Amino acid sequence: MRAVVMHGPGDVRVEDVEDPAVIEPTDAVIRVTAACICGSDLWPYRGVERQDGPTQMGHEYVGVVERVGPEVRDIEVGDFVVGSFVASDNTCEICRAGYQSRCVHQVMIGAIGTQAEYARIPLADGTLVKVPGEPTPEQARSLLAASDVLGTGWFAAVAAEAGPGRTVAVVGDGAVGLLAILAAKRLGAERIIAMSRHADRQALARRFGATDVVEERGEAGVAKVKELTGGYGAHSTVEAVGTQESMMQAIHSTRPGGHVGYVGVAHGVELDGMDLFFSTVSLLGGPAPVRRFLPDLVDLIMTDQIDPGVVFDLTLPIGEAAEGYRAMDERRATKVLLTL
Amino acid sequence: MRAVVMHGPGDVRVEDVEDPAVIEPTDAVIRVTAACICGSDLWPYRGVERQDGPTQMGHEYVGVVERVGPEVRDIEVGDFVVGSFVASDNTCEICRAGYQSRCVHQVMIGAIGTQAEYARIPLADGTLVKVPGEPTPEQARSLLAASDVLGTGWFAAVAAEAGPGRTVAVVGDGAVGLLAILAAKRLGAERIIAMSRHADRQALARRFGATDVVEERGEAGVAKVKELTGGYGAHSTVEAVGTQESMMQAIHSTRPGGHVGYVGVAHGVELDGMDLFFSTVSLLGGPAPVRRFLPDLVDLIMTDQIDPGVVFDLTLPIGEAAEGYRAMDERRATKVLLTL
Repeated sequence: MRAVVMHGPGDVRVEDVEDPAVIEPTDAVIRVTAACICGSDLWPYRGVERQDGPTQMGHEYVGVVERVGPEVRDIEVGDFVVGSFVASDNTCEICRAGYQSRCVHQVMIGAIGTQAEYARIPLADGTLVKVPGEPTPEQARSLLAASDVLGTGWFAAVAAEAGPGRTVAVVGDGAVGLLAILAAKRLGAERIIAMSRHADRQALARRFGATDVVEERGEAGVAKVKELTGGYGAHSTVEAVGTQESMMQAIHSTRPGGHVGYVGVAHGVELDGMDLFFSTVSLLGGPAPVRRFLPDLVDLIMTDQIDPGVVFDLTLPIGEAAEGYRAMDERRATKVLLTL
Repeated sequence: MRAVVMHGPGDVRVEDVEDPAVIEPTDAVIRVTAACICGSDLWPYRGVERQDGPTQMGHEYVGVVERVGPEVRDIEVGDFVVGSFVASDNTCEICRAGYQSRCVHQVMIGAIGTQAEYARIPLADGTLVKVPGEPTPEQARSLLAASDVLGTGWFAAVAAEAGPGRTVAVVGDGAVGLLAILAAKRLGAERIIAMSRHADRQALARRFGATDVVEERGEAGVAKVKELTGGYGAHSTVEAVGTQESMMQAIHSTRPGGHVGYVGVAHGVELDGMDLFFSTVSLLGGPAPVRRFLPDLVDLIMTDQIDPGVVFDLTLPIGEAAEGYRAMDERRATKVLLTL
C-alpha cells in the first residue's frame, strides 16, 4: 500500500510499504478514506524532534473497517469509523474517568501511521466509534477534524470550564484554538475572546462564535482581556500553542478562581511556582482524551449541528503529501486534508 | 498595648506599641483573645524573607469586637469573631465566586499583625464571622485553627476534589497537611494516605482519619502510593509543603484525570511544562480562600463535630512569644498558640 514516510527533516515521501495485518486479537484494520497533517507532524519535519530512521506518519483518520481480530465485538467489517490519536481500552479506571488518552493500555496511533491506505487500529472496540449512516463529503471532513483538532479543542474548552455566563479567552488561532471557540460556543459560553492577529483566522473565529478579537500578545494581550472583563480577567482560558509566552498569556488572562485548559504541547515551558500560586487558577491540560467526546461529536456532525471540517483549507491527494507538509511548514495552510 | 515585633532574623520581642484605631469606616478593632505563630512567620525569622525594619507579626486570630467604624453593619461590639489572614469585602465577583483570598480590595492581615492585644480588621463585615454563643476553651483553640491552618487544609482538600469513593494522598505532615486529612475525612474520602515519617504526626494523622501512612519520600513515595492504588495513583493529592520535591511528589502521586490541591507557598518551585502536560492532572492552589469555608467550619466546631485545635502542641502567654518562635524554628513544636 502507499504510505507517507518521513526520512528526515524536510524529507517526506510517499512509498509502497507492506499492508498492515491484524496482530493482536483486539485489532482492526481500516481502509483510510481521509487523513491529515498535524501541527505536531512539523516537529520532526523541522528537525525539532529526532526520528529513528524512516517513519510512517499520521495519527488522524476516518475510514472503513476491512478486517477485525477474533476478540473484536462491537466493530464490524464495513463500519465507517473514526477514532482518536490514542488507542485505548475504554474499560480501565482511567478511561472510565474520561481520560482515555492516558489509558493504562494506551497505544499511540502516531507510532503506527495513518497517512496511508490502510492502518492497524489496536483495541478496536475501545478506540473506534461507528458513524451511523453514510457521511456526506462535508460530514466526512468534519469527522476527520473530530479525530484530533476538534476533540482537542473541545477538551480544552471543557478543561477551562467554558459554559453559561462565562467569558472564555482563547490563546492560539490554529485549528485547535479555532475549534475550542466552536466548543466554547456549543458549551454555552456568554462571551468568547479570540486572541489572533490574522484576518482570515479572525473571520473563522467569529464564524465559530467569537464575540471579541484581541490582537495584542503577551502582557499587552492580558491587559486587553482584563479591560474587556471589568478588570477581573476571563473565567476560562484555552491555551492552544504550547510556548512559554502563550502559557503565561493564558494564566495571566484568567481571573483568580478561573480555569485554564491547555492543550498546546508544552515545548520548553517552565512555570514559576510562586507566580502560579498567586495566580490562584485551576490548570488542566495534556494530551486530549478525544475518545470521551467522540460519540457526542459524531452525533453533532451527522446531524449538521457543527461544521468543524471548514478548518481544512488545503486538500491534496496523498501522492502530494510532500506539498502538504511544505504548505503547513510555510504557514500557507492551517490544516491539510489528504484524500486516498 | 503589647505586641510581638520582629526586629530581624531570630530577633522577636514583645513590646509596647500604639493601640490600633478605626481608620477606615469599614474597620473593626478587636481584642485578640488568642493568636498563633505560623510556619510562614519563620521565613523572616530565618532570614529567608527580608523585612523592612521592625515589623508587628501575626495573621491568625480570634477575639472580641471592641469598636466598629460607622459603615460596619453586620458585626457588633461584643461579638466573638474569627477571620482569615486576608481581609476581603466578600461582595466583589472574585469573593462571590469563593476566592476571597484574592478579593479585589484584599488587605493582608499579616501587614497589620495579630500577635498583639488588639488588632484592626479592615472590611469587617466581609472579613469577620460571628461565633454563636460562648466558645469553650477547646472550641476557642479550634476556632483559632480555622483562621488559617484548618481553612487552608480544607481548601487544599476541596481543590484536590476529595470526596466519596476517592483516595486522597497528603504530602506534608505539618498543621495544614494534618488538617487537610481531617477535611478529606469530613468530605467523605474513602481512603486517606498520610505521607509522614514522624510517629507523633502519624498518630495525629490517623486520629484525623488517615487510613494509610507512607514514610517514603520523593519518587519512592510516589511508587508506594501507586502500589496502594492498583498502580493508578491517588484521585486527589494535597500538597502542603511548598518545595520542588513536595510538588513533584504530589503531581506524580496523582492518577491522570486526578486533582492536586497545593497550598504550600511555592519557594523556588519550577514546574516543567512537558512533565505537567503528560501528568494530565488538575492543579489548583494558592493562598486559601479561608473565608469561603469559615461559616461552615465555625458551625462544625461549635457543635463539637471537629476538633482541629488539637494541632496546637505548645501554648504560651504572649510574653513568651520569642520561645514560641524558637520552638517552631527548632521543630520542637508543630503549632504554637499564644494566649493574651
